[in-house]
Amino acid sequence: MKIVNTIAQLKTIVQNAKKEAKTIGLVPTMGYLHEGHLSLAGRAREENDLVIMSIFVNPKQFGPNEDFASYPRNLERDTRLAEPVGVDIIFAPSVEEMYPEDGGITIRAGRQSEILCGASRPGHFDGVLQVVAKLFNLSEPTRAYFGQKDAQQVAIIQTLVRDYNFPLEIRTLPIVREVDGLAKSSRNVYLTEQERAMAPSIYEGLIEAKEEFLLNKNVRAAIELATKHITNKTSGKMDYIELLSYPDLKEITETTEHFLLATAVYIGKTRLIDNIIFSLKGETANV
Amino acid sequence: MKIVNTIAQLKTIVQNAKKEAKTIGLVPTMGYLHEGHLSLAGRAREENDLVIMSIFVNPKQFGPNEDFASYPRNLERDTRLAEPVGVDIIFAPSVEEMYPEDGGITIRAGRQSEILCGASRPGHFDGVLQVVAKLFNLSEPTRAYFGQKDAQQVAIIQTLVRDYNFPLEIRTLPIVREVDGLAKSSRNVYLTEQERAMAPSIYEGLIEAKEEFLLNKNVRAAIELATKHITNKTSGKMDYIELLSYPDLKEITETTEHFLLATAVYIGKTRLIDNIIFSLKGETANV
Repeated sequence: MKIVNTIAQLKTIVQNAKKEAKTIGLVPTMGYLHEGHLSLAGRAREENDLVIMSIFVNPKQFGPNEDFASYPRNLERDTRLAEPVGVDIIFAPSVEEMYPEDGGITIRAGRQSEILCGASRPGHFDGVLQVVAKLFNLSEPTRAYFGQKDAQQVAIIQTLVRDYNFPLEIRTLPIVREVDGLAKSSRNVYLTEQERAMAPSIYEGLIEAKEEFLLNKNVRAAIELATKHITNKTSGKMDYIELLSYPDLKEITETTEHFLLATAVYIGKTRLIDNIIFSLKGETANV
Repeated sequence: MKIVNTIAQLKTIVQNAKKEAKTIGLVPTMGYLHEGHLSLAGRAREENDLVIMSIFVNPKQFGPNEDFASYPRNLERDTRLAEPVGVDIIFAPSVEEMYPEDGGITIRAGRQSEILCGASRPGHFDGVLQVVAKLFNLSEPTRAYFGQKDAQQVAIIQTLVRDYNFPLEIRTLPIVREVDGLAKSSRNVYLTEQERAMAPSIYEGLIEAKEEFLLNKNVRAAIELATKHITNKTSGKMDYIELLSYPDLKEITETTEHFLLATAVYIGKTRLIDNIIFSLKGETANV
């Protein structure tokens, strides 16, 4: 495994791989890897000749009052975790390397970004699309891997790839959870012991709501049930909880096939997200 | 030479070329070809294994009161002109083929787009960047060719390629002119005989201004001279005339090395643009 910090190094590696007609799997991350990231890397390893994992805490996707400065970083730890799952290249650039100049061209993520996390994090998905477009162009991947935990992000990136014709395939993998159901997240390290004990209630609430919805097809009742469960069982403050169609993220109708039940909850100061994607036939991971 | 109308056909051609490690030259046009376009195609032929010319009148870069509907189109004529200069593939998609769905993701062109043509054509360069990003992703070119006549467009596209790391090189070629100096343009067909006779005054005015500026380094005097020349010699209405640094398109300073002297003039109902790029040492084509 090789760690590269510059765009020039990465481009040389990519160009050589292309010359040899190798397929490239890209796993974009912000580092502080957990089993979710590693499952993406493992799948990328199975499906591609060269596996590139980017580790970059992207300042453009953090708001002014968010946790960019405190976001956990540990490249040495990440390196140790990435090697055994078969990552070939870690691309870990500095902010200056990724954004040396700024000609002011921006990407606006559109309607899909105005709800859910986008409503409480204005500009977040614009920043995500900016770095993702750059990583796509730098890595020229055959396939790029994203976790379903950021379901809205995946939906928006799918739209980017579709509407801007990026020559690659997006692969989405299911959420990896702790044994008690809490979705794995780099931000879980922020939780105190007490908060950590409450956090599984988020997923419990989602399951209750899904089951209620499948039974009675009543969105409001389902949402209320989950809200009650999560607010009762945690000291947390709900940011949002919504049931929408997936991947278009619109209000559900009679013809909706895939549903996204998604929530963001503040447990103490830590904002955690979780979701379930399901159809009337049951839970589904990939849409 | 092959004419393809669908994205699927184009992608097959591009994928096959990539498999054979062929270099690809892309010449994006809106068709109704003139010698300017053909010089781009000729250069692309010299430098690449496969030459793709796109012919697409892009609705996204026209304002509601602009000439999208009346813009001249003649694919049969374009085909006849493109073949002898060595174009391999003409990609001529319909609007529905290029924009089948719209997830609402937009590109905003930033500061460089707020002046010159951007000031009188709001959204124009956003639409240009959208179609150019799509054409880059569809054609995966080694090199893409643009004419200096749209100097602001070239500058903005250079910024896109730099800031978003598109893996390709932009090549710019000089303006091709009629014998009397009028810049070749697909829109010249709009001119009446009388208007056509006046139109060379645009370039004459630019030359006067450039010479005045090189002599006295006085921006205002230079601009006034050109304005006077053009308004006296034509029945035209100036849209703008400006002298800026190139390619950053900022106010010129003591240290400016390359200058863009650019104008847009309405001759009758036809809006014509022209420019000169020069340094203190003389006229330059490529920056």
